[in-house]
Amino acid sequence: MSYRAPVAEFRFLFDHVVDLGQVTATERFAEAAGDVTDAILTEAGRMCEEVLAPLQRVGDQHPAVLENGVVRTSPGFAEGYRAIAEGGWISTSAPPEYGGMGLPQALTTAVNEMMASACLSLQLNPLMTQGQIEALEHHASEELKALYLPKLISGAWSGTMNLTEPQAGSDVGALRSRAEPAGDGTYRITGQKIFISWADNDFTENVCHLVLARLPDGAPGTKGISLFMVPKRLPNPDGSVGEANSLRVVSLEHKMGLHGSPTAVMEYDGATGWMVGEPHKGMAAMFTMMNNARLGVGVQGIGVAEGAFQKALAFALERRQGRAPIENPTGTIIDHADVRRMLMTMKAETFAARAIALANAIATDMEKATGTADWAARAALLTPITKAFGTETGMKVAELGMQVHGGMGYIEETGAAQFYRDVRVTAIYEGTNGIQAMDLVGRKMRDGGEAAFRLIDEIEKDAEAARGRLPDLAGPVWEAAETLRETTEWLVAQGDINERFAGAIPFLRAFARVLGGHYHLRAAIAEGGNGPRTALARFYVTRLLPEHTGLCAHARAGAADLYALAPEEFAA
Amino acid sequence: MSYRAPVAEFRFLFDHVVDLGQVTATERFAEAAGDVTDAILTEAGRMCEEVLAPLQRVGDQHPAVLENGVVRTSPGFAEGYRAIAEGGWISTSAPPEYGGMGLPQALTTAVNEMMASACLSLQLNPLMTQGQIEALEHHASEELKALYLPKLISGAWSGTMNLTEPQAGSDVGALRSRAEPAGDGTYRITGQKIFISWADNDFTENVCHLVLARLPDGAPGTKGISLFMVPKRLPNPDGSVGEANSLRVVSLEHKMGLHGSPTAVMEYDGATGWMVGEPHKGMAAMFTMMNNARLGVGVQGIGVAEGAFQKALAFALERRQGRAPIENPTGTIIDHADVRRMLMTMKAETFAARAIALANAIATDMEKATGTADWAARAALLTPITKAFGTETGMKVAELGMQVHGGMGYIEETGAAQFYRDVRVTAIYEGTNGIQAMDLVGRKMRDGGEAAFRLIDEIEKDAEAARGRLPDLAGPVWEAAETLRETTEWLVAQGDINERFAGAIPFLRAFARVLGGHYHLRAAIAEGGNGPRTALARFYVTRLLPEHTGLCAHARAGAADLYALAPEEFAA
Repeated sequence: MSYRAPVAEFRFLFDHVVDLGQVTATERFAEAAGDVTDAILTEAGRMCEEVLAPLQRVGDQHPAVLENGVVRTSPGFAEGYRAIAEGGWISTSAPPEYGGMGLPQALTTAVNEMMASACLSLQLNPLMTQGQIEALEHHASEELKALYLPKLISGAWSGTMNLTEPQAGSDVGALRSRAEPAGDGTYRITGQKIFISWADNDFTENVCHLVLARLPDGAPGTKGISLFMVPKRLPNPDGSVGEANSLRVVSLEHKMGLHGSPTAVMEYDGATGWMVGEPHKGMAAMFTMMNNARLGVGVQGIGVAEGAFQKALAFALERRQGRAPIENPTGTIIDHADVRRMLMTMKAETFAARAIALANAIATDMEKATGTADWAARAALLTPITKAFGTETGMKVAELGMQVHGGMGYIEETGAAQFYRDVRVTAIYEGTNGIQAMDLVGRKMRDGGEAAFRLIDEIEKDAEAARGRLPDLAGPVWEAAETLRETTEWLVAQGDINERFAGAIPFLRAFARVLGGHYHLRAAIAEGGNGPRTALARFYVTRLLPEHTGLCAHARAGAADLYALAPEEFAA
Repeated sequence: MSYRAPVAEFRFLFDHVVDLGQVTATERFAEAAGDVTDAILTEAGRMCEEVLAPLQRVGDQHPAVLENGVVRTSPGFAEGYRAIAEGGWISTSAPPEYGGMGLPQALTTAVNEMMASACLSLQLNPLMTQGQIEALEHHASEELKALYLPKLISGAWSGTMNLTEPQAGSDVGALRSRAEPAGDGTYRITGQKIFISWADNDFTENVCHLVLARLPDGAPGTKGISLFMVPKRLPNPDGSVGEANSLRVVSLEHKMGLHGSPTAVMEYDGATGWMVGEPHKGMAAMFTMMNNARLGVGVQGIGVAEGAFQKALAFALERRQGRAPIENPTGTIIDHADVRRMLMTMKAETFAARAIALANAIATDMEKATGTADWAARAALLTPITKAFGTETGMKVAELGMQVHGGMGYIEETGAAQFYRDVRVTAIYEGTNGIQAMDLVGRKMRDGGEAAFRLIDEIEKDAEAARGRLPDLAGPVWEAAETLRETTEWLVAQGDINERFAGAIPFLRAFARVLGGHYHLRAAIAEGGNGPRTALARFYVTRLLPEHTGLCAHARAGAADLYALAPEEFAA
């Protein structure tokens, strides 16, 4: 079986779990009502099934290569990219005045997930461009916008992010790339950048690099960094591409997976760049792009989870092996309790991660549509959770997908292993999951936990309302939310930020666990507490939600025991 | 940094945690006292560091290949194998009357772990031979033993296990391979076997296949299966090798990892075989080999965990990135709380898994030395836990190892990714971890849970004794053991075996969690409740042991909700 786009599932989530209706009720997104959503999901879904899914294996087996300084992409990727661009799937949420559809991020999130399921390595390309569109929209001059946005939105040009340097990974402030004013309003950019996804390709006319670099008067650290647009080819005023800029792809990395996506070392040697935003405020501009990209990377994890689940399910429905001690067996391995446990886990976790991501996207839409601080805080709170939990779900589900296949799962031809290899990087790039968790307990709790408590209030209110009809689901969700509240209170009460950092990852996981319970409960209520969604919710609440107690205990354990060993004692 | 054999760690575990002394106090293993153990660990450790560790990457980059029907192994593997054989490391526990050292399985387990850390793909070869030696020792005729055991023990010949067929994976009873009596006491073996590890090589004179096949009068299912020795070359009575047998390597699999180990499809076309054990009792004989191999595979996971931990630690002590909010930072990433959390988790989990495996090995030694049913039951109980928890620990630690490396972890040259790819198969082969868990709650609970309760009694007794001195560690361990007891009571009370199967994996994980607490507590007591081992124990008890509540809840959830969805509803 190949990939089948879960269109009806998105429709259900939009209508009954994350309330897309509140978005389409705003003036800004009024056009995104029922029919449009259906058309977008169906069309994008079909493109993913028919055009992108066949490229998944091709990219793995025929990685992008660097030949004489030029990146040659995997066979079929140029055609796949064209289908994405022509369908408008790069720019569903991009501003209409530059050619985008201007639809909610929630829809883009659904489309991105489907593309990620079908061909993760190719999907990373438009994901990077989407982030760049967002950054330019908010921070670039009108001239830069007028020149670049139509090209990026149509897909004629693609975009990249250039942050990392060998000595500056998670610590972006340690970067050394320099930007010298050329005197004509442009800058000369010099430096080396590493881990640049889709740094080049052979199917767009131009590649637009957003590069972080330091001006001569830039302070050390993150406060002295500026952002520059550095295109591969210098654009002429009419939008055609002119001469080559002074930059080059030095080499491509040999990665464990995501082979179809070229990851490059880039060298800028006095390349011409244009400043985006204000001097020394590059990190702020980059954060716009990163927030978008972090939601997007979380969704990559969910896309892989969906793909891995579909493949494992197809195998389980077909493979005959052993006889399970149940009545009326089908004869295939789906009869076995442990195979069921794995498939139910995969399905329940994918549902939870997807609901969180869509709720996150809807918060960004409501922020855009209403301009209120509450929605902005909600979006900011959910972004690290979506990124880390989405990618951990991708890893977990891909692991279970291999396990369902047994020995066949370890053989590359089966395809289950590719999901496992490909998705692994999503927990690392765009800020490691550890960085996400520090963001959650640090920056996102500067409000004293207000945004978190508001969300926990909503979870408890929903659970209270459902207690009469679904006590066995609503009760545990309410109690888990209460434990999460206590843990959050403990966290925000810590004056020493390292006390929070010590429990950051388990806290993030606990938050996701409780949110998952919340959304599963909503799904169960929507079908009247009886049916397959209720069964899935019951599985989640009974078997996965109890993990929150161990996670909350871990989150509150404090930093002392982490430092009880001297560095040299670790090796002993 | 390359691999450093944890010799002192084994010594500590033997002396203070798993009590090797009780083994060396027996007549059978009296020779394995202090000095011998030290010499074995030191010598084997040095061979692993110097000879095997450099082969790890080579095997990955230059997989074994099949050329004109002959397997050509990775460069250097022949020399590596020779070092293993000449050191006697295939046969530390093999019977002395055939050339083995006759030492405890506990020592072999330590040696196997070190070899697995250093070069997993090559180590799998002697691991298979060890299992074959054990099977022949217990089930083969004196003639077969006299012919084969000296060759296998010296490493001149190697051994394989041939169980799996395309339609018979976890369900071994579905196999179709046939054995026809030839009239001269030998049999003609015909059939196809898949997933045969080290089915061939270019460094041993012969390859001895133990093959499961059905006699003409064999009943369907597992009860009609017999076991046969089918050598690649027919041995002459003097032990030299003669003409080729009618068998061949059809093809090698393209696997996600473990590239240095050739995994083959084998075809037997009327090949000459000799029966091992009695007609139709092949499964019993194979179980001897499998139990040994299951312990051995769990130890493979632990070996990878150790290797991945050492690599990540070296990186963390060297990589400078960001400034952690702590006093007296070293400047490297080991300052960061989340990096510490990862390294402490890796170290604490590896300790727990290693202690469980060594306790398991010691139970098999005590079973051999004393012949008592209690030790046999202890060994049988621990084997599936060692296999599943050891391999899950390998996967988890390898995953964390990549995460500590950040972006570098995803680049193959770093080596962190290889651990992650290689170890994944250990959760699948030698009986998937799901099969192990079913074995634990099924076959291993046929005694009404007696062996489990006896072990839980010991855990509680130890915790009681430590309560005065280390209340913060002993209390939680006692309580966790009590929750495990209640969960075990619930399990054994279930008349419907599928109710147990439904919670088998979480039950196995909960059991391992509690055992880990037990052994960490012993380590803390051994250093007087103050020092790095106590700090590690505190980390484990505070942060990882609480997971047992969620796991026990999951284990007791029953089967009903797993079957609430009809097969066709999974895809909806």
